[in-house]
Amino acid sequence: MVIIGAGFGGLSCARKLTGADGVHVTVIDRNPYHLFAPLLYQVATGGLPDEDIAYSVRGAIPGVDFRRGEVVRMDIEGKTIRLDDGAIVPWDELVIATGSVSTTFGVPGVAEHALQMKSIREANAIRIRLLTTYEEVDNGHRPREHLRVVVVGGGPTGVEVTGAVAELQRTMRREFPRISDAAHVTLVEAGPRILPMFSEKSSRHAKEELEELGASVLVNAAVDRMYPADVHLKSGEVLPAGTIMWAAGVSAPPQWTALGLTDRMNRLRVNDMLQLADDVWVIGDTACLEGPGGRPLPMIAPVAMQMGRHVARQIRAKVSGGSITAFAYKDKGQMATIGRRRAVVEAPGGIRLHGTPAWLAWLGLHVFYLAGGRNRVSVVANWMWNYIAWGIGPRPTIID
Amino acid sequence: MVIIGAGFGGLSCARKLTGADGVHVTVIDRNPYHLFAPLLYQVATGGLPDEDIAYSVRGAIPGVDFRRGEVVRMDIEGKTIRLDDGAIVPWDELVIATGSVSTTFGVPGVAEHALQMKSIREANAIRIRLLTTYEEVDNGHRPREHLRVVVVGGGPTGVEVTGAVAELQRTMRREFPRISDAAHVTLVEAGPRILPMFSEKSSRHAKEELEELGASVLVNAAVDRMYPADVHLKSGEVLPAGTIMWAAGVSAPPQWTALGLTDRMNRLRVNDMLQLADDVWVIGDTACLEGPGGRPLPMIAPVAMQMGRHVARQIRAKVSGGSITAFAYKDKGQMATIGRRRAVVEAPGGIRLHGTPAWLAWLGLHVFYLAGGRNRVSVVANWMWNYIAWGIGPRPTIID
Repeated sequence: MVIIGAGFGGLSCARKLTGADGVHVTVIDRNPYHLFAPLLYQVATGGLPDEDIAYSVRGAIPGVDFRRGEVVRMDIEGKTIRLDDGAIVPWDELVIATGSVSTTFGVPGVAEHALQMKSIREANAIRIRLLTTYEEVDNGHRPREHLRVVVVGGGPTGVEVTGAVAELQRTMRREFPRISDAAHVTLVEAGPRILPMFSEKSSRHAKEELEELGASVLVNAAVDRMYPADVHLKSGEVLPAGTIMWAAGVSAPPQWTALGLTDRMNRLRVNDMLQLADDVWVIGDTACLEGPGGRPLPMIAPVAMQMGRHVARQIRAKVSGGSITAFAYKDKGQMATIGRRRAVVEAPGGIRLHGTPAWLAWLGLHVFYLAGGRNRVSVVANWMWNYIAWGIGPRPTIID
Repeated sequence: MVIIGAGFGGLSCARKLTGADGVHVTVIDRNPYHLFAPLLYQVATGGLPDEDIAYSVRGAIPGVDFRRGEVVRMDIEGKTIRLDDGAIVPWDELVIATGSVSTTFGVPGVAEHALQMKSIREANAIRIRLLTTYEEVDNGHRPREHLRVVVVGGGPTGVEVTGAVAELQRTMRREFPRISDAAHVTLVEAGPRILPMFSEKSSRHAKEELEELGASVLVNAAVDRMYPADVHLKSGEVLPAGTIMWAAGVSAPPQWTALGLTDRMNRLRVNDMLQLADDVWVIGDTACLEGPGGRPLPMIAPVAMQMGRHVARQIRAKVSGGSITAFAYKDKGQMATIGRRRAVVEAPGGIRLHGTPAWLAWLGLHVFYLAGGRNRVSVVANWMWNYIAWGIGPRPTIID
């Protein structure tokens, strides 16, 4: 069988199939690493080196058959896929776990002028831009307003990167005393509150904590268009910015929409068993499955991981002649971190945390989920150091 | 005053001048970071992330005036330098600390086909080449002989990277069982023994330890020419290799040779005070100063650091009306690491270590000298983990 994609869904599925009798698993991905995408914002703001959030697929799943490549064609009837190097890979069971990409919602200028944060390359580009701007403003090659940063999108990613930028701007004060008072970060959200999937109380906490860090939060502020150094809101307000980050939305990649029915985010509609066909499964951000309330399940790592493990169990059952069952998502809550000792956490049973307890919960869970020992050790060391040395230790540098 | 170059020499000089009355220090470098170059080979072989060996100059020297840029012209009479962005920087005292670059000695094919290891970019290119070759051989896109690696140059850098490649090849066995028996590394040295600056006994130890790791060592083996996947020796022997690394020699960059007399490695000849003129100082790999035995001092970090501190003291003396003194190099010995618990160390007084004691000495000294707390913590965490998990932990991955 073949799993396309080594994200949270694909990796969980492959892990759960390790050692299953009569099942040979091949994982295909364009990168040879699993990316711990929820921490991309820390790479983008210099908190972690990129190697801390990427680790070898082969290393993560001992004995797995991994193939680096991009899938350019899926032949569902012939039961093969074709890779970009021309290789044809046959499959008996296929798991599509190709994740999501950024979507601009057609807002003019976003594709040209905003930085995205879906890959290591993009996260590194943001870090280099943020740090280089200080050098160039200090040299007099760019105006001081270019130290202003605008983040579009008030979901967890936008909130987390806004908090991290605000902290980075504080760290930089010591090294660029002449110019750093011009640095500022503004979070722009089209809806009436940030973190709309959280409770109103958590939204309010998140907004207050961002403001305590020195960030501005604009709600009911839809973006009309963008220029290289300006964000124009529908209200007519213009926000100057040397760095514009787009965290306003993701959708499934468009190339598989011909395989079945899709929703408006290009997600493939699957049955309760997560099937597109008898032997074709879709999991994670690429799958559209309605949850208990009739709304599609969110595009987040816990959904993908639970789906991956579910499909692995169904394939094991099929191989051993058992019957397959429907997928049921178990909501374990949600969290977003805002900065040092600042986070919001919501768990089932009405548990609501904010501030230090929420941040410690976030920290523990992320360390726990960072698969791969080396990465875990190094992430903890870097976080501990960042925490202790915040404001006095050396800052991240520009490796370009 | 202006220091050109934020390497070991420039940084030591700037540090020693911090807080000196009547001295304003500007450091200029093309990169905003100090590079801990002796550990580039660990970045090239996946042992450390690049951020662990690069740290912000501004962060390393609080209060220093740093300017990112490349010096395109030095006007010694007008007492100014010109940067690549057109800026003119005046100076009263100038310290030239621009380091060294690789030199091919005119061997045909080296510039085109061999990988160098003088910058982070080059070290990352080596790591990506080494790891990508496994993927491509596994895919059948490249022949198995491309898993062979040739390192040219038996000095400390060549020995260290050869040992690290041999260890990496062992680590990869678990993930690429079908092909990894084709992986091999050969160290090629033109002279009669590797580590010629060490004692014969240390050379022998280093050779034995490399061979225990599975590497081959060829001495009296001068390279005649190179092709994309072959190294031709003067003896007529041909070594196939998918990765060729050139660690055979460095010289000072050629652009300042017009400023004074140079030796055959483009190094500027200085007087005993390290001066080219009354107010122009040259330190580190760019300086040619004869040592006690009549031979020029070696191009190594300890020489650069001692020179940097010496020049700082002379400038302090000049400012306070004192007299300047000649530089005297204090040899503190030399070391090279070959792998886990394998190293050679030589210190004054006839101290000779090899194996585990030498490796521990190497480890302690390198941790001590990695300036900047965060880097130190993270390096130690990564090294500890690499040591514990060697052969079982996840391997470095390809971030390209």
